[in-house]
Formats: sequence, C-alpha cells, structure tokens
Amino acid sequence: MSSIFSDRISDVPRSFIREILKVTVDKDVISFAGGLPNRELFPVEQLKQASAEVFDEAGKEALQYSNSEGYLPLREYIAKRYKTKNGLEVNPENILITNGSQQGLDLMAKIFLNETDDVMLEEPGYLGAIQAFQVYRASFNAVRLEKDGADIEHFKQILKHSKPKLFYTVPNFQNPSGISYSDEKRKIIAQLLTDKPIIVVEDDPYGDLRYTGREKKTFKSLMPEKTILLGTFSKTVVPSFRLGWLVAPAAYMERLVIAKQAADLHTNYFIQRLIFKYLSTHKIDSHIAVIRDRYDKQRTAMIAALRKYFPEGVDFTLPEGGMFLWVMLPEGISTMKLFDIAIQKKVAFVPGNPFYTDGRETNTLRLNFSCVDENLIDEGIKRLAEATRELLSTNKDY
Amino acid sequence: MSSIFSDRISDVPRSFIREILKVTVDKDVISFAGGLPNRELFPVEQLKQASAEVFDEAGKEALQYSNSEGYLPLREYIAKRYKTKNGLEVNPENILITNGSQQGLDLMAKIFLNETDDVMLEEPGYLGAIQAFQVYRASFNAVRLEKDGADIEHFKQILKHSKPKLFYTVPNFQNPSGISYSDEKRKIIAQLLTDKPIIVVEDDPYGDLRYTGREKKTFKSLMPEKTILLGTFSKTVVPSFRLGWLVAPAAYMERLVIAKQAADLHTNYFIQRLIFKYLSTHKIDSHIAVIRDRYDKQRTAMIAALRKYFPEGVDFTLPEGGMFLWVMLPEGISTMKLFDIAIQKKVAFVPGNPFYTDGRETNTLRLNFSCVDENLIDEGIKRLAEATRELLSTNKDY
Repeated sequence: MSSIFSDRISDVPRSFIREILKVTVDKDVISFAGGLPNRELFPVEQLKQASAEVFDEAGKEALQYSNSEGYLPLREYIAKRYKTKNGLEVNPENILITNGSQQGLDLMAKIFLNETDDVMLEEPGYLGAIQAFQVYRASFNAVRLEKDGADIEHFKQILKHSKPKLFYTVPNFQNPSGISYSDEKRKIIAQLLTDKPIIVVEDDPYGDLRYTGREKKTFKSLMPEKTILLGTFSKTVVPSFRLGWLVAPAAYMERLVIAKQAADLHTNYFIQRLIFKYLSTHKIDSHIAVIRDRYDKQRTAMIAALRKYFPEGVDFTLPEGGMFLWVMLPEGISTMKLFDIAIQKKVAFVPGNPFYTDGRETNTLRLNFSCVDENLIDEGIKRLAEATRELLSTNKDY
Repeated sequence: MSSIFSDRISDVPRSFIREILKVTVDKDVISFAGGLPNRELFPVEQLKQASAEVFDEAGKEALQYSNSEGYLPLREYIAKRYKTKNGLEVNPENILITNGSQQGLDLMAKIFLNETDDVMLEEPGYLGAIQAFQVYRASFNAVRLEKDGADIEHFKQILKHSKPKLFYTVPNFQNPSGISYSDEKRKIIAQLLTDKPIIVVEDDPYGDLRYTGREKKTFKSLMPEKTILLGTFSKTVVPSFRLGWLVAPAAYMERLVIAKQAADLHTNYFIQRLIFKYLSTHKIDSHIAVIRDRYDKQRTAMIAALRKYFPEGVDFTLPEGGMFLWVMLPEGISTMKLFDIAIQKKVAFVPGNPFYTDGRETNTLRLNFSCVDENLIDEGIKRLAEATRELLSTNKDY
C-alpha cells in the first residue's frame, strides 16, 4: 500500500481551470476564462420575495429533512416544461433533483461504472464530466467533434473496437466548443445505438440559451429508454443554489435514489421550495429572454472582433447559443504558450488541454462571452490577437 | 456482465428506515421511529430575516458560483466555536463545508477506500455511515458497543486480526444507541491507535445536545493528525439546509476538495451566507439551550415511562444527550415481530436490524424522543410495553 488514499482519487488532477482562474483575478485582465453566468442578470429581488413567502407559508415544513427524490411540485413543474418546450413526455417520478448537474454525473458514474468500464465522450469535452468519470476510474473513448456534432466515422470505429457503457454528450452549445449537433447527426447516432446496451447521458445545461437557429430534437426523445437527460437552473436562474435534475428511465430510478441518499440524503429542501415559488410566481421565459438578448449581443460582438482582429489561418466556431466559443489556431501552436503571452497583455482564456482526456498540448482554446461586457469584448479580442501574432512570429517551428 | 449497474450499487439495499417511515404516516400512530429534530423549535423568523439581509447586502455575489472549500467566514466561525466550546485548535483552512455530514462520509469513503478495504465501525452503528461505506464496497469490522463506548477487548482483537483503514465512531449520544464514550475509553482507544495507520472518523452531530454529565474530550484533540471530525447544523439550526462540515488534517484537504469538486462543485453558497448571517446576528447558544431543555424533558419522560411500563428483563440505555435511546429485549425475541404487533397498537419504533452491518434479526430497538411531545410519550411507551408483553407471552420459544 503505497498511499493512504484510494486509487480512484490518486488519479484525478486538481481542476486546471481553478488554477487558471487564480491568475486572472487581476482587475485589469479582461477574462474570457470564466464559465460563469452574468451576475448582473440574477433576479435578486424576485428570489428575495420568494424566500420570504416560503418562510411565511411553509417555514417549519420547508426547514425539515425531506425525501431523496426531491420536492414533487418542482419535479412536476420540470416535467410540464419539457412537455410545453420540447414536446417531451416526462413522468415527474422519473425526475431526481440533484445538487446541480455535476452531482447527476457523480451519481451516474456511481451506479453504472465499474473500474475500467469504457465511457465514450466528446473531444474536446466538458471538464466536470471528465473529472466525475475519472473518480470512478473509467476508461475514456474520446470521439472527435466536428462543427455539427460527433465525427460519425470515428463514432462507428469506437463502437466497433470497444463496448462503452455510457456515451456522454452535450448536444446543445457544448462546453467548451460551443457547437451543436445537427438533427441529422442526432438521428444517425440514435440509429447506431439501437440494440446496443449503451446509456446516453445527455447533458443540457444551456438548452434554454439559444440565440439563433432552430430547436433540435433531444436524444431523450429519440432514445427514451436509454437516455438520461440532465438539466439545471444554474444558467437560467442562479448557480449558487446548486439545483439541477436528471430524468432517467424508470428502471434506473431506484438505484439513483439509493445513491443520492448515500451521497447526502437529499438536496436542500428549502431551496427547492424557494425556486418553485419563484418559478410559479414569475414568467421564467421573460427572464430567459433578457439573458438571451444580452448573451447574444456579447456573442455577436465576440464573433465580429475575432473576424476583425485575427489573422488568416485561425478558425473558430459560431455557437447558436450557450456561453462559449472555440478557437483553433494553426497546427503546432501551443495555447499554453499563448496563455503566458496573453496574460502579459492582460487578457485571459482557457487553453484547450484540460478538455482532452489525455490533457495533451493543443492549438485550441475556449472563450467565454457570457461574463464580459460588450464594450470590453472588442478590446479583449484585440489583445488576444496581438498575443497570437506575437507567438506566430516568434514560433517559426509551428 | 449480468447487470447494467455497477457492482458497488448492486450491493446496497434501499434504506430500511425509509420503508418503515412509510408505515408510520398514520396520524394515530405515536411514532418513535423518526430521527428528526423537533420542527417546533426551528428559528423560522430569524432565518427569514437573515435571508432578507443576505439578498440585500450581497445579492448578486451570494447567488454566483463559489469555491469548493466553502465560505471562509463560516469556516472561521466554526473554527472559533471549536476553540471556545471544546478548547480545540482548528485552522479554518482545514474545514470543508459539505452537504450535511452525510456528504462528508461519502467524500471520505471516496478518497480513502479501495474495494474490500477494512472499515471498523460500531455495532449497532449509524445507518447512513453503513450505507455510505457500502457504496464503496468496504469490508466491515464491527466492534461491539457497551454502555460507555466500544468493547475494548473486542477492539483489540479486531486490530490484531485485520488492518482497518478507517475507524468510524459517533462518540457522543450515538445514533442509534444513545451511548457516549467515557473519557477513559477515549484515551485507551487513542493509545491503541498510536503508530497505526488508521484514520479516525469522529462523527459528532449531537455534541451540542448534552442534557446531563460532563463534556468529554474529542478524539480530534487526542489524535489531531489522524482524526477527521464531522459536524452539522442539522440538529442545532435546521436540517433542510444540508449544511455540515468536516475538519481534516492538512494532508487530506487537497484530495477532499478535489472529491467535493467532482461531486457537486460546491455546497449551496447562498445558504452558507444565510446561516453565517444568522449565526453572527443571534446567540446560537441561547437557541441550543431551548432545544436542550425540550429534548431533556422528553428524554426524562421516556425513561420514566420505560421504567413504569416495561417488564423485568428489558434493559435500555440512559443517554446523556442526543435524540435516541436503545432498548434491549430478552434474548431471542425478534423486534421485527414486535414491530407488527406495535403498529396494530398504533406505536412505531425502528427494529435494531438495520443498525448491524449484517442486518441480522435482533432483540434490540431504537426509540427517538426528540420528535414526540412529552404528553404523548407516556401513552406511546405504554402501548409499546403492551405489545412487548403480548409478544413475550405468545412467543414461548424465545
């Protein structure tokens, strides 16, 4: 026994992004490194009012222990919203309230993964998912992303050579790339997975934040019996409440509830009551429209600035929603090196490395546009372009 | 692959107590089966006020994502309270805020336990801990409890024949037995563990609820470098907030924080601010004194009723605090059978079985006194004694 720690935790690195964020607290730095919603849009007064009402109407009860599944009226609300918004039939009994989507990932890994079980996920992919699955010592099968979803040929190859137990995907405005799956690719993937014992984990934190283009079919609607759908209030209401949920086929619910109970008994019940009160006394869609309008403007400003300042040979995605955009520099350029130059020029971003399961050096980087004011975006991208030019000119061997 | 589920979750049974609580919702049943604090004592108005103040003073910031360790002023408050209340030196940096103590157990199991690692715990022991460790496929070494703590001879035997990685203990007013370790046994155990690579998990949810007797030394003070101490606001403020913490040696903090981050990023930050506001604007000790006074009266009423109604040959513990009391019926009697008779007589309790790692039938049962009004306790115990007499007379083969 070389270490007092378990094998599982010895493998997991400390979050790279946490470390990066520490460098970017300098007030003069224009940071595209974050992944936060814009706090200026939080409905503070409305939540304050909802909180007071819960204390008045249900004080003692809302402060007691509760059940592991979550507050039923909140689960009914979520089910109803899926019906009206996505045409999706969801039974409230198949919804489990979690501490943000992140806990949903932990619970799924817990109930499905034995050590070295294969997990297929996107590359680049969501860091929190990589970390959650790493804790359970998954083996990763990374499928390359294209601008309209997974590379189908690569997807087929992986299915041919391994037996993934889970396929983890963020089909709308993916973090980090900002890309969305086309309807066609969604259908092809659903077809490829027919008769395969694979659980699809469809993580959809940004689904409500669409600025352009047409709503796509969920994997859940294409493969209801094999898909677990994750949602969250972090991007549409507030993140600090840590309120998310998962929608699972009935066959998985009992085990998920047991895992939830063993993990922390239940999610903060007072907060579940509070958000339900807020949701049932306010028009959430009007609030989301305000967020969409703001983020869309920032996204548009960022795309315009990238076109204006960046040299030829630099490619980037054009997200239809969400909070992120992905930049691909010429092959051989290291965005880790770029980071050092950029920080000197007072602009920050997240290098692509941590979004790859092997953490390799890459020529890619992630930009967040939800947290930077429109007027600062132009200046920030200008600085980043200067840093890029500087690296390209000194780095002749790329 | 016989099951789609992981091996770890296939082993864990659904909580027995949850199932029992379903039978006891009948309003006519006097239930000693719960484990809840008395909601009549929740500081509803004060928390409502604190909530409004947090929204006013720190709205946007309190609603944003936050760090995984927890709100520093709250961790400083907890450290300071250990100093003044227990004479314990704790560095706020060694405190991690968790979703109740239950999450502390999950995180510890996660970072320390490989499959089949030995875990020593008390028998009978806390069900939530058994469940949390079962998820990580621990092998249990159950040490018998006596009325003043673990059976020391048995403890020594276990150390001789196996190498437990963790020793899990609830030294004050244990759930389910209500017993507390004597100072002497605490010292003996600390001595026995010197030079052994064992992590002591000292779970102290009830420490503040002492009604009689003298405050004892914490294991943390006797073995600072090997003890992880768990605490919670669930029993002194409210449980629905899911606010607990752990105090760990510096060497374990980084891994615990990584595990917390992978599990759910961080604990509800708004609620951390809210409870800190409440704690810093109210005298928590006056509030705890009110809880103590009420529970003490209920405990006294229960002991009096047990003495009044129960037949010879029935033994029970005399808790100095907490919420539970443990009854030992004559050998050979099954409290599972007693449960059926008791429910017919409209009284409920929890049979001892689930508190044993092997779930065996026992002659023991747990009674909760925090949730039943003083005047109902006499009637409830009377019914339970009648049920016991009935079982004793029909069940000649015990």
